[in-house]
Order: sequence, then structure tokens, then C-alpha cells
Amino acid sequence: MNSPWLVNGAVCDRVPAGDRGLHYGQGLFETMRLSGGELPLWPRHRARLSRGARTLGIALDEVQVEDELARARALWPSEGVVKLIVTAGSGGEGYRADAGAVSTRVIGYRPVPEPRAPLRLQVCSHRLPCAPALAGIKHLNRLDQVLAARELDPGCEGLLLDGSQRIVEVLSGNFFVKSAAGWRTPPLTGNGVRGVLRELLLDTVFPALGETLDEADMTLSELCAAEAAFACNAVRGIEPVARIEGWRNLDIGAVAPISAALHRLVPCFAD
Amino acid sequence: MNSPWLVNGAVCDRVPAGDRGLHYGQGLFETMRLSGGELPLWPRHRARLSRGARTLGIALDEVQVEDELARARALWPSEGVVKLIVTAGSGGEGYRADAGAVSTRVIGYRPVPEPRAPLRLQVCSHRLPCAPALAGIKHLNRLDQVLAARELDPGCEGLLLDGSQRIVEVLSGNFFVKSAAGWRTPPLTGNGVRGVLRELLLDTVFPALGETLDEADMTLSELCAAEAAFACNAVRGIEPVARIEGWRNLDIGAVAPISAALHRLVPCFAD
Repeated sequence: MNSPWLVNGAVCDRVPAGDRGLHYGQGLFETMRLSGGELPLWPRHRARLSRGARTLGIALDEVQVEDELARARALWPSEGVVKLIVTAGSGGEGYRADAGAVSTRVIGYRPVPEPRAPLRLQVCSHRLPCAPALAGIKHLNRLDQVLAARELDPGCEGLLLDGSQRIVEVLSGNFFVKSAAGWRTPPLTGNGVRGVLRELLLDTVFPALGETLDEADMTLSELCAAEAAFACNAVRGIEPVARIEGWRNLDIGAVAPISAALHRLVPCFAD
Repeated sequence: MNSPWLVNGAVCDRVPAGDRGLHYGQGLFETMRLSGGELPLWPRHRARLSRGARTLGIALDEVQVEDELARARALWPSEGVVKLIVTAGSGGEGYRADAGAVSTRVIGYRPVPEPRAPLRLQVCSHRLPCAPALAGIKHLNRLDQVLAARELDPGCEGLLLDGSQRIVEVLSGNFFVKSAAGWRTPPLTGNGVRGVLRELLLDTVFPALGETLDEADMTLSELCAAEAAFACNAVRGIEPVARIEGWRNLDIGAVAPISAALHRLVPCFAD
């Protein structure tokens, strides 16, 4: 295989030392499943990237990004994971970016990760701050996730709460819980990433199954009454939760109908 | 002049595309005044860098960083501003860094900026989130500052508040206010950067003057009763505030004794 990195459309494994993505985290990323040489969820990734670029003042040229993704896919295997980073580029005066700055685009490849056993969730003690201006978008300021990851035992996935003890997401995806009232997922108004698979579940998969799915706040005490839970992201699809460490087991079978419906719609997540 | 960048000790203007500083902001920076070929406040910068490296799990080799700073200073003019970035390097599995990762060091040069007229402060509407685990250190997750800077009118400096309407700092430095009770500066327990010049004022300059300086929370309403205010950072020294935009003027003369005492101790800030 060729280099796993393309920078601004060229095979290259370096970015400018003055890039605002490095200096301030003024940039966005998308981590995407590559299947049969295609990015099946690209339109949803593109829409989130576009929302984020407006929030962060990044000059995003979607046609250019699509051209560079096509060039990358021609170089790489047809199955894998593609990570796209778009930053505000170089220049500016400290925190103030130049109005006419050209973005930096970094595209990287890695193989599809091995499937994980049903998840063992560990509740992280690091709390996500309330930051509504940045909630939902997938920006490069990820120190909260880095600090939370340092708490985890090997083999565990982290459950992240905010300062008001509300559940927000897992370390690498969104979080869904089933109780007697149906399925629920946090609304992500103050923090968290609005995952593309979360959106697909909300607008297509759950309606097709005739299952209710509410966006609503929840605390750990509501996990006491939960029957089942799962995490999801655009690389691994749906992953059922088997256990909340030091507390209780959950029914992974209750997640199977949701997984099956997703697999019918996006077959790569059945692998 | 040679290249304004050194990366890992070599003249180079590129960093690895997989660097964790770019992907997650897992890194730290110090912006330092270079005067007579020396970094007069380096021991304080080094101490803050070391605290931050422990918090973020970065393998900091202080001797290596000092060697590379010496190499950089030999290449560059004797007056200017040096920015040092130290990141967690490449590798790791997503948010989890490798235990044995080698840091990336980036050192950049720029000329001393022109002095600014007494500051016109604009109260930013963007609020800093409460994030005590990251408070005080100078990490690379700076989107709050980038968003706040986008609000500013040309020529204005930004005053940053938290979600509880407490004053935290200015966009590019710490903030000090004088009222009838004496001088005060925010304690920075939930957010903000503990500036090296702030520390020097607290432990040396104010005590030498026999002036009180309290670390205490303050809100905008306390600015109503303020006589004077200043901002400070390790590049520009002390900058008196002339005006809070749309509100009131302050007495810049009351800042002069503090500036004079700092200049006696660190002469480069008298320029």
C-alpha cells in the first residue's frame, strides 16, 4: 500500500508547523467506514462537516474535499477506515484567523478494526464541560476524551457524564438505552458529538421498525431500570453493552433487532 | 533569517500528519519573550510546561527541550517572541496514547509585536466552560478563544467570562482590577491559564511594592466600582485598560507603579 496519508491532495505525511489545527484545534474530523471502495455514509459526514465549518469559521470547499477523497480511495484498499481532517489552515494573528485563509485537508487510512466483544462500560470520573457553542460538531479539541481514556481499564469502553451527572455519550460513540418506556438517547445540547449513525437511527432505522426513540436527558439512576443499551459509531456500527462494570449486566439480545435493521440498510456494519 | 520553525531540534516547517497535537490537541504551548538572546522567564515557563505534561500524560524531556531552545536561539535574532509546542507525539489507539510515546517539539520565532495603545476591552458573549481538570495549564484546545476572538471589533481586546458570569481572563492574558479594597485577580480554578507574569506579579512584584493582591472571584458588577485594570502576558508585559467598550473609562495612571516595578525586575517589558 502507498502512504496512509494525503495532505491537500498529495501523498504526504506532514502538515505545516504553523497550522491552526495544531496550534488551537481549529479544525474538524470525520472518521468513516470505507466499504467496497465507497464511503456509504458520506452525505451525512459531509453535512456535519459543513455545519462544523460554519461554526469554526473554516473555508470548506466540499467539491475539493470530495475530489481528494476520491484520489485517496484510488490509492488505498477498498475496505478500511478513512479519517478526514479539515483545519482552518495557517496564518492569522493569534486566535484571530485570517478571513481569506485556505483550509488544510488531511486524509488518512487504516484497516477495519477487529470486532469487539459486547461492551463492558466503565463510568469515567472525568466530566464533560457544558459548551453549547461546540456541542454536536466533531472538532479537534478532544482533551476531555484523552483524559477520560486514561482512566479506563484494558478492554473497557468509557461512559461520559457532564457536570450535572447527565449521561452524554461513550468515549467513541453515541449511547442508547432501553427501558420499559422504550429507547432513549441523550439530546447533546450542551456537549457530545452528533454521530452520523445516531442520526440514521433516529430518522430512518427506528421509524422503520416502529420503535420509539426519544432524545431525552438521563442520569445513571435511570440505568438501574434499563433492560439494554448499545453504543454506535460510523466505524464499528452498533455495539451492544453486556455489562456496566462494578454494577450490573444488560440484555444484549434486546439490541439484535436494531442491529439487524441497520445491517439491512448499511450492509458493511454486518461484518 | 533562517526558517522560523524547528521541529524536534531540526530546521523544518512540517510536523507528522498523525501527531496527537493535531488530532486531539494533546499538547502544550509556551509563548515567550526573547530578549538579548535569552528567555528571561524560562524557569517559570518550564515549571508550567512540566505541570501540564503531567496532567496530559506527555513524556516531557526538559533537558532535550532546553537544548533545542538553545539551538533555535543560535539561529534567530536576539529579540523576538518564541513559541514552544510540546505534543504527545504520534501513535496510540484513538484517544488512548501509547505509554512509551516520544513527544513532538515545535519551536517558532516571530518579531516582537508593536506596543498597543491602552486597551479597549470588549466583553465577549462566548462563555468559557467550567473544566477544572484543564484549568491553569496552557494546552492546545483553544477553540473557546478562537470563537471569542471572532466576536471582537478591530483594535479591541476581549474580556472572557464563565457560565456563572465570573470574569476569568482576557483573550491573550490575565486580568487584574483595582478597587478601594486593593488589587484583585481571578483565581482560575475552573478555567483560564495561570500566566507566568501573573505568577511573578503575585509572588514578587506586588509584595515588593507593599500592595495587596488577592486571588478572588469577580463579576462585571464589580467592574462598576473599579478604579483601574490591566492585562498581562509574557510577550507584551503589562497593558493598562483605558476603556470597557460601551460602558466606562478607567484610570490608566493607577497602573504605572505596577508597570514600573515589573520593568525594574524584567527590563525587556519596558520596551
